[in-house]
Amino acid sequence: MMTLESLLLTPIIAGVIGLVVAAVFYVRMISQPMGNETMNRISSYVREGAMAFLVREYKVLAVYTVVVGIAIAIMLGSTAALFFVLGAVLSLLAGFAGMKAATHANVRTTQAAAIGSKAKALLVALDGGAVMGFAVAGLGLLGIGILYLIYANDPKVGTILHSFAVGASSIALFARIGGGIYTKAADVGADIAGKVIQGIPEDDPRNPGVIADNVGDNVGDVAGMGADIYESMVAAIVSAMAIALTIPASVIPQLTAEAGEANRTTAVLLPLVLSALGLVISVVVVFGARLFSNSKPAVVLRTALIIPPVLLTAVCALVLPSFGISQAVTVALAAGAFGGAIIGLITEYYTAAKPIRLVAEASLTGPATNIIRGLAVGMESTAIPIIVVALAAYVADAYLGLYGVAMAAVGMLAGTAVVMTVDAYGPIADNAGGISEMSGLGKEVRAITDELDAVGNTTAAIGKGFAIGSAILTVLALFSAFNMEVNHVRINNGLAEMKLDLTSSGVLIGILLGSILPFLVGSTTMTAVGRAAGKIVEEIRRQFKEIPGLLQGKAEPEPARIVDIATSAALYEMIVPGLIAVLAPVLVGFVMGPQALAGLLAGSMAVGAAMALFMANAGGAWDNAKKFIEKGGLPGHPKGSDAHKGAVVGDTVGDPFKDTSGPGVAILIKVMSVVSLMIAQLIATIG
Amino acid sequence: MMTLESLLLTPIIAGVIGLVVAAVFYVRMISQPMGNETMNRISSYVREGAMAFLVREYKVLAVYTVVVGIAIAIMLGSTAALFFVLGAVLSLLAGFAGMKAATHANVRTTQAAAIGSKAKALLVALDGGAVMGFAVAGLGLLGIGILYLIYANDPKVGTILHSFAVGASSIALFARIGGGIYTKAADVGADIAGKVIQGIPEDDPRNPGVIADNVGDNVGDVAGMGADIYESMVAAIVSAMAIALTIPASVIPQLTAEAGEANRTTAVLLPLVLSALGLVISVVVVFGARLFSNSKPAVVLRTALIIPPVLLTAVCALVLPSFGISQAVTVALAAGAFGGAIIGLITEYYTAAKPIRLVAEASLTGPATNIIRGLAVGMESTAIPIIVVALAAYVADAYLGLYGVAMAAVGMLAGTAVVMTVDAYGPIADNAGGISEMSGLGKEVRAITDELDAVGNTTAAIGKGFAIGSAILTVLALFSAFNMEVNHVRINNGLAEMKLDLTSSGVLIGILLGSILPFLVGSTTMTAVGRAAGKIVEEIRRQFKEIPGLLQGKAEPEPARIVDIATSAALYEMIVPGLIAVLAPVLVGFVMGPQALAGLLAGSMAVGAAMALFMANAGGAWDNAKKFIEKGGLPGHPKGSDAHKGAVVGDTVGDPFKDTSGPGVAILIKVMSVVSLMIAQLIATIG
Repeated sequence: MMTLESLLLTPIIAGVIGLVVAAVFYVRMISQPMGNETMNRISSYVREGAMAFLVREYKVLAVYTVVVGIAIAIMLGSTAALFFVLGAVLSLLAGFAGMKAATHANVRTTQAAAIGSKAKALLVALDGGAVMGFAVAGLGLLGIGILYLIYANDPKVGTILHSFAVGASSIALFARIGGGIYTKAADVGADIAGKVIQGIPEDDPRNPGVIADNVGDNVGDVAGMGADIYESMVAAIVSAMAIALTIPASVIPQLTAEAGEANRTTAVLLPLVLSALGLVISVVVVFGARLFSNSKPAVVLRTALIIPPVLLTAVCALVLPSFGISQAVTVALAAGAFGGAIIGLITEYYTAAKPIRLVAEASLTGPATNIIRGLAVGMESTAIPIIVVALAAYVADAYLGLYGVAMAAVGMLAGTAVVMTVDAYGPIADNAGGISEMSGLGKEVRAITDELDAVGNTTAAIGKGFAIGSAILTVLALFSAFNMEVNHVRINNGLAEMKLDLTSSGVLIGILLGSILPFLVGSTTMTAVGRAAGKIVEEIRRQFKEIPGLLQGKAEPEPARIVDIATSAALYEMIVPGLIAVLAPVLVGFVMGPQALAGLLAGSMAVGAAMALFMANAGGAWDNAKKFIEKGGLPGHPKGSDAHKGAVVGDTVGDPFKDTSGPGVAILIKVMSVVSLMIAQLIATIG
Repeated sequence: MMTLESLLLTPIIAGVIGLVVAAVFYVRMISQPMGNETMNRISSYVREGAMAFLVREYKVLAVYTVVVGIAIAIMLGSTAALFFVLGAVLSLLAGFAGMKAATHANVRTTQAAAIGSKAKALLVALDGGAVMGFAVAGLGLLGIGILYLIYANDPKVGTILHSFAVGASSIALFARIGGGIYTKAADVGADIAGKVIQGIPEDDPRNPGVIADNVGDNVGDVAGMGADIYESMVAAIVSAMAIALTIPASVIPQLTAEAGEANRTTAVLLPLVLSALGLVISVVVVFGARLFSNSKPAVVLRTALIIPPVLLTAVCALVLPSFGISQAVTVALAAGAFGGAIIGLITEYYTAAKPIRLVAEASLTGPATNIIRGLAVGMESTAIPIIVVALAAYVADAYLGLYGVAMAAVGMLAGTAVVMTVDAYGPIADNAGGISEMSGLGKEVRAITDELDAVGNTTAAIGKGFAIGSAILTVLALFSAFNMEVNHVRINNGLAEMKLDLTSSGVLIGILLGSILPFLVGSTTMTAVGRAAGKIVEEIRRQFKEIPGLLQGKAEPEPARIVDIATSAALYEMIVPGLIAVLAPVLVGFVMGPQALAGLLAGSMAVGAAMALFMANAGGAWDNAKKFIEKGGLPGHPKGSDAHKGAVVGDTVGDPFKDTSGPGVAILIKVMSVVSLMIAQLIATIG
């Protein structure tokens, strides 16, 4: 029988495989034809704008990383600080590589569409997305793999792992919120100034805000999303490892036939090894999906998203016995895997099927009824995903205790590389459409890119479902890890276990305070988008007024100024919501102690999980209801009708809902949990 | 030194005083001049419509009361069932009396305005509201007072109290949700069919939906609100009494110098006696406020709302020593009293000051930005009230334990009669405006009623703040009472105390499930309003089409048909959200046990408290932003401008937010807690 210890190197090997695969996809993509000069000029504007944002964002984050790194060095030691920085830097690297690939892939996708090959265009866009997908998964595994290889037997390994996760989380938080504000401010700003005020079409090259809008797709949906998924994967693995490290010997799950502490070693390594397996499976799935490039793209991508977690479960059922590991692990993984698939499909239902038609029909009586119906759909859509997560957690807990809950999250995230590939595909296809429009390539080319874009919308919904579902499970696991860490320290200090009784006033007050935070992040991010969009509208109007001949198409706009304004505004506006997420647990923890902090986490988790689903799905429903009407879903009410105008209002409200505030709230609860886990040992004895 | 036992009759005496005062106000109001025949015809339409709704609603509730009453009789005994029915019937009585008074007071207010006396009109409207105010407070005290007088020494007194509260809560739930659906469906339906589709002014007598709209004001804001506040008061008193009855002897708060069980008797009686004192203070305040009828109405009413709880605290500080009762009680009351005042003023800020201007300015760029800003204001507005509640709970708990939290709620609700008076004043003033418009009394009369109406809006915000703040505190107290009851039974059965550890999977899963419920009630109530409004629009359009001469003002509309449709729709649509609230705790309790139920309550409380504030305040902000523009707040953008149209969209979305779903969510968490408390002894030994 093989031992799991012999697999200590697999995460690192898998990480390297991931990076090699990313490089292969990059080379394939970059060798595709780039189209004519106009296309490349536009593409280079987008690329330069995106890179300029990234560079400026990274400067801000460098300051944050140094400040927090010093604080960690003082409080938790220099190794922890070093790995905090590594966790952050790997996230930045993944974002940089993915963004680079996406902004080269967009114009090549347009070119493939220009020669009339939909299958080819699909593949180019997917290749571009896969660079991000495998960079994210590969770097994550490599980081944790190396960390554990060096520090496996160090008593501080837990602290180092937590710090690594906080590094990953911090970047995700700011990249997600900053990117979310950028993308929606540019989108809304360009739309209001162009479509609403000037009455010119979307993506019209005369509109100075169109480049910024296309930059925003990359900044938000590639870099922001990538950092987010990287942190989900890291947090899920770290939470499982952290629980395994601190769980009382008496309740270590019986993974192998051996006694207590041998089980612990297996439990710590297992999430890493299984995630490595998940990456290898993802490679197979992505290459496999390419064979079906002539089938219906939506079906191929949907299947590709659902297969990896299910395949992982199947492989585990077959392989785990050879390592003498209990099939209870398979059950926990399956709970997560199937739960994720169900949530993904439910999310697609709420942003595609009957609910969309209801929202579209509500537009017949004006924007107000459209808004009311969209809000109602979003609220309703919270129920089944949360019930599914609760069920998955229940099953996993029944078989493996709280460690099982973390393993369910690991199972749900097994397809990280695929989820990220498909997610990054979306903005590439979207950009390809924009480039086609701005280069005047004509309706037929645009029809192909529009179809690819529509597919991206469907799969984005499924990907979003996975992301939020796994976030909730991960937060549950992190929450347990936090409590175990606190009690671990308390017992080592000869103190009684922390009382987390729901009726104690500390816990209840923590829950109440926690319930506020998702609303505050929702509020600050939505007003941030509004303010930033306002500045963009102002500048676009100025250009229309002051650049002679611009509206007649005889002069060039100055897109770089809009990009600059959007960048400054997004970076400025991300600070308040970002600091709320990082400082709230630190303040409550150090001032009120671990008991109130546990309450804070529970309250923000309860509210945040539902809020994130509500906002993401309401936004998706509005978006797709508008598209439904544009495709003729309401006979007699075409594009431009009153019903369509009502739906456009819903779509505009939905933009910050689904791409800024919803993801912001989801990352909020993850960051709070990770930060709490890191400071757990420092505050364990307070109160 | 006097003993508290000597005051056993005071709640009953105070209750009778309340009823006498209500009768006095009724007689005063009814003796005022009624105006001309047209006015009275319109007023009688409204009154008949409102009464017709009440009668049909009561029939539905009679079925519910009988079914649930039988279930209670079987499970908890016939006395409990009897008092469940009494709790319900007293609520219905209060609603009936208040509605009768309000629908007589509206036309008399119009008449006072018609003779040009603003002060007189204000007093008539206040007198009408005071009938409801003192009926609610008087009947509540009378009911609990009699119950306790008879059963003080019965071992089942706790169960009987819980059942009484469930009766009150059930009626509140359905009256609030049914009334909320009615009022907003009629409002939105009449507006869409009249203002939007036909382009005729608000309250135009040609619009067949105007009567139903005016009926709705009474059905929602008088009957629904009355039942809601009645249940808040009952629930706060009962939760304090229930905690006092079941608190372990070792932790009974040290209220008097005597030993344990003597303290218990004092603790049980105290909330009743203090509420009686609150009623007497309210009488003084309402009569006192009348002396200032020539001052600025908004200031008078705002002061009247804030004084009673503060006065109660002051009186207690002076009087409690004569009963040998600890000043810790004063501190707990003060925490609630001042907390309530702060929350009221914060609510007013978010629905009146700078936030309104921001929402109005956001309308300059269209309805979408108006909606986004309104949602953001609503989300932000959750923070301070919840922090204040948490602080109040913390202080009260520090001095008196969980019993103190309940006493803080009692303190916050000391002015129940005044809050209800001012709340019922609102729809009377609103109706007076409608009657003036429909009777063609001219602009000057309308100006007076409009000003009275505007005052009602301001004070409604403060009243709403009190209502939601006290609801959260009451739910905290009920939650504690539930846990004590469960453990009381478990210990009596030789079982260990229920483990309510936040990390146990039962609790966590309960919290997750609980987080869904406010969203589901929000979703079902919002779509209910939409569906019901749709039916009303259809019928109004039919009448415009089929009644010859109606639009030219030469024929009469058929308002009774609209009233009938609104009534049927509201009663039908209230069933699903109502059953969610009642059945969720029963199902989770009996299937999953008390531990998961406690989690469910905590999760729904965390989400529901914030959601209720979010929805109520966003709705208030939209409403007042529209009014701000109509009053010329945005120079160059008058009524009818694009900015105003954008604000109207926000107002329409805000209508179900603030008057249906927000209050629905608030009552949801109260009902769930009360029902859980009642079934606690039945499920205590499960799991």
